[in-house]
Amino acid sequence: MAPQTGKIICAGLGPGDPDLISVRADRAIRGARQIAYFRKKSRAGQARRIVAEMLAPDVIEHAMEYPVTTEIPFDSPEYNRLLAAFYDDWTARLARLAVDSDVVVLCEGDPLFYGSFMHLHARLQGIVPVEIIPGIPGMTGCWNAIGQPMTWGDDAMTVLMGTLPEAELARHIRAADAVVVMKTGRNLPKIARALATAGRMSDAWLVERGTMPNQRVTPLAQADLQACPYFATVLVHGNGRRPLSDSAADAAE
Amino acid sequence: MAPQTGKIICAGLGPGDPDLISVRADRAIRGARQIAYFRKKSRAGQARRIVAEMLAPDVIEHAMEYPVTTEIPFDSPEYNRLLAAFYDDWTARLARLAVDSDVVVLCEGDPLFYGSFMHLHARLQGIVPVEIIPGIPGMTGCWNAIGQPMTWGDDAMTVLMGTLPEAELARHIRAADAVVVMKTGRNLPKIARALATAGRMSDAWLVERGTMPNQRVTPLAQADLQACPYFATVLVHGNGRRPLSDSAADAAE
Ligand SMILES: C[S@@+](CC[C@H](N)C(=O)[O-])C[C@H]1O[C@@H](n2cnc3c(N)ncnc32)[C@H](O)[C@@H]1O
Ligand SMILES: C[S@@+](CC[C@H](N)C(=O)[O-])C[C@H]1O[C@@H](n2cnc3c(N)ncnc32)[C@H](O)[C@@H]1O
Repeated sequence: MAPQTGKIICAGLGPGDPDLISVRADRAIRGARQIAYFRKKSRAGQARRIVAEMLAPDVIEHAMEYPVTTEIPFDSPEYNRLLAAFYDDWTARLARLAVDSDVVVLCEGDPLFYGSFMHLHARLQGIVPVEIIPGIPGMTGCWNAIGQPMTWGDDAMTVLMGTLPEAELARHIRAADAVVVMKTGRNLPKIARALATAGRMSDAWLVERGTMPNQRVTPLAQADLQACPYFATVLVHGNGRRPLSDSAADAAE
Repeated sequence: MAPQTGKIICAGLGPGDPDLISVRADRAIRGARQIAYFRKKSRAGQARRIVAEMLAPDVIEHAMEYPVTTEIPFDSPEYNRLLAAFYDDWTARLARLAVDSDVVVLCEGDPLFYGSFMHLHARLQGIVPVEIIPGIPGMTGCWNAIGQPMTWGDDAMTVLMGTLPEAELARHIRAADAVVVMKTGRNLPKIARALATAGRMSDAWLVERGTMPNQRVTPLAQADLQACPYFATVLVHGNGRRPLSDSAADAAE
């Protein structure tokens, strides 16, 4: 067998604006001879779109197309079987492709934070060297899109998936000062009900496509709950558990 | 009065490795004619250290030295009064300095995530234009230092400050799948007790100076709880609430 000289580099892309990619990932992407990225069938793919202006003209592209997305219930054995086979297959293909030249795998946000890459990462262990380049998580781009401090003082912040049952969402929201809910989409009406139950609906924001060209920031109470894209995050700011009180600030003047 | 032509640019520096700064912040810092950064009295300052190799030779530096750090209890009126006066003072100074040339304010991690910059941000509103450049949060650098997926599936992740009372820490840790505890330092023994109470001590990691040259990653159970630096974070990984089960993966082979 030929000696292994290439490796897999998983590059975190950040929230969407290519200018928010790290210097190290920017260098890896611009210098890549091969890239790979996940996408839904017959879609351009968000990761590919972020790097569109950065790729070398002769880069070789590997689109890793999910065999299913929402056609089959995600908790069915069939869904699990199809996805596991998909990740197994791409593990073998990436390992082969990386034998003599690095493959840069693109990953939205940070690769180790709710990322699909982890399914490849686990399978690639011991087969081919893997290097991961951190990225700005999507949620960080979203609170920067709003432009107010997300957390301060002793705030507790909880990150939740919109796929959780409504009662669990409400319980977690009640216990937290600041809240992030990802995987919104068709879960948005349920997320809104959980926020209302926990008394936080009027503090909530919806950020769609944060830092991307078509970004939209809306108070959740004014958003259309039925038309939420995949790249959308709900945020509730913390209040600062132990702030510099305004009266203290006044006294100092 | 002269027309305002400069602005305040707050640049997120990420976890510590200068290569993990965003392309936009990297450009702002390298091109800066004036920079400002917080530091403790008679310390070099972490933010300044991160950008050491990036600054123009003739950059003008403004060190914003905290009037107190741990000499006075943080919950005393005196502490609040001194800090409020400090932030008021620097707000006025930065506004003057930015009249005809941008000032780049350096901020570790992401500026809107538990950052000191928020105290200036609130005061600068309506006085001088402020632009914020997101950064990779310190915690994201820390879980990348460990190299395992921090969260997946439906995991709920909670971020806590080590300054919280032990019982509150334990309650939050019990409710979460993945946990991040920042502001460790002298709070580390208390944090370890809270983790033990919640049954998560054996899953916890301590990352000191994540992505910095002297980074250290230790299972918390093996760490010296009495000697924890300021730039240290405790992490507990999520287990993936609804993983692709191994049996499903096996069945697919
Ligand atoms: C499977 S998770 C991937 C998270 C990614 N690894 C990260 O660090 O952000 C996908 C979810 O992230 C959120 N998200 C990521 N980027 C976003 C953006 N730019 N704007 C809004 N939401 C975003 C959405 O809620 C989306 O459903
Ligand atoms: C006041 S908070 C500032 C957080 C910053 N704005 C961010 O986004 O990470 C300071 C705390 O962040 C954590 N921290 C930041 N960078 C770190 C690093 N490189 N390694 C370990 N901990 C870090 C430590 O727990 C520290 O006490």
